[in-house]
Amino acid sequence: MPKSDIHSPKSAGFVVIGNEVLDGIVLDTNSNWMEIRLTALGLEMRMLVSVRDDLEEIGKALRFACDNCDVVITTGGLGPTHDDMTLKAVALALGKELRLDEEAMEIVEKQYKALHAKGIVSTPEITESRRKMAVLPEGSTALNNSVGGAPGVRIDLEGTTVFCLPGVPSELMFIFEESVLPWLKERISQKYYETVVEFGTNDESTFAPAIDTVMRECPEVYIKSMPKTYGTAWTLRVWISARGNNAQHLREKVEEAIRKLEEVTGIQASLVDAY
Amino acid sequence: MPKSDIHSPKSAGFVVIGNEVLDGIVLDTNSNWMEIRLTALGLEMRMLVSVRDDLEEIGKALRFACDNCDVVITTGGLGPTHDDMTLKAVALALGKELRLDEEAMEIVEKQYKALHAKGIVSTPEITESRRKMAVLPEGSTALNNSVGGAPGVRIDLEGTTVFCLPGVPSELMFIFEESVLPWLKERISQKYYETVVEFGTNDESTFAPAIDTVMRECPEVYIKSMPKTYGTAWTLRVWISARGNNAQHLREKVEEAIRKLEEVTGIQASLVDAY
Repeated sequence: MPKSDIHSPKSAGFVVIGNEVLDGIVLDTNSNWMEIRLTALGLEMRMLVSVRDDLEEIGKALRFACDNCDVVITTGGLGPTHDDMTLKAVALALGKELRLDEEAMEIVEKQYKALHAKGIVSTPEITESRRKMAVLPEGSTALNNSVGGAPGVRIDLEGTTVFCLPGVPSELMFIFEESVLPWLKERISQKYYETVVEFGTNDESTFAPAIDTVMRECPEVYIKSMPKTYGTAWTLRVWISARGNNAQHLREKVEEAIRKLEEVTGIQASLVDAY
Repeated sequence: MPKSDIHSPKSAGFVVIGNEVLDGIVLDTNSNWMEIRLTALGLEMRMLVSVRDDLEEIGKALRFACDNCDVVITTGGLGPTHDDMTLKAVALALGKELRLDEEAMEIVEKQYKALHAKGIVSTPEITESRRKMAVLPEGSTALNNSVGGAPGVRIDLEGTTVFCLPGVPSELMFIFEESVLPWLKERISQKYYETVVEFGTNDESTFAPAIDTVMRECPEVYIKSMPKTYGTAWTLRVWISARGNNAQHLREKVEEAIRKLEEVTGIQASLVDAY
């Protein structure tokens, strides 16, 4: 799929960085949390790549994601330890120099003063490990972090905007809400409309041809089914969605597809009352 | 990182397939479940790529993973609906023909007979949608599925073995335990040793230089830290691990690294009593 005009991004991807995720020590819930919000905003999530704390591997993943997505969000690897190397990998992969960023340094200083005042760290002094968090690729914009020590980063490239967020969920959520969402909301023009219904059947394989028929008749609409159990009872949950510029039109197309699914299968759709 | 001798695989990767994962409808817990087991077995998880139900995107992800890993496990997209296209994408990406597989067909027939006998589906007949699940890339081995309709698949290529598993967790777990783990256990010779300890400090940035020092002195050992809160109390949880062929040697190296960390920081490590 081709990439879109960067002035109105349509697709997004994630690069999840950290051995702890691939080793199964940590279950990545950050991406799911962001996916729900970005999909509702109208973006299509195109891919997620999860890699180890390794400069070369992070670089490969970044180039893969930047080649395929208008917006790329990296998570993890912004902290003070030896294996926090996201910004170095971003600089290498994108051909940028690293340099001390004044705004980032102000954020780091402010945070360690606050953490020291609360008695959480023993000194507010900017040690070498703390200074590292303010060394950003040239052309970056530092994003405020009022929850932890590491600032987030935004880099606008030709064709892709890269956001680098910390892996700690509370820090990621803070920067995402304060800096990422407002930036995207200003730029996204595409809309997303989705309805979730259930059909009283337990046999996806018999239902499948009806989905094929309706998707051929309603080419703007995407239909996804998944069998669901409630104790011993089964239903088929079906997601009907469309993307485009006119919200009213999308809604009509989705409703038309649901009516057609009911016609073809002879089963009435019901709204989902338990998620 | 170079790939290993396929006769004794060292690295693994995942290709997670399905719009429902990238749209945030489903949180992928399958990968985490497998990562824990494969890491304990001695494999290094090198990457995970999550993509939409799209032939071209699945193909790109597969080639990316096969280029970097000795074993690649795909999850999702083996079912009967229009957007279950994993096997077609595997065949395209690897230059294989698709053909009806007799063993796979026996599994599909057995399963639909059983589902019909339990009253879960209305007919045991092998419809076009069900037949699709027995059409595999040439050279595949069908893997028994006693939980759902779709057989798993193993394909041995030059340099990489690809396993294709269903996305439904109960089906994935069944095939993983019955067919994937035994195959890997026979072949993996590398071992993994890990100890998790905690240090009574809340300041990762002050601890970081000690990790650097110890990792320089113990080059076989990998050290990863993460701050943890228990209510208002903080500790630094530290994972110390090593990979190699001699389990006793790995254990000694890990224990030596813990002693050195205690020496350099002047803080005593404690075992983790709550996970």
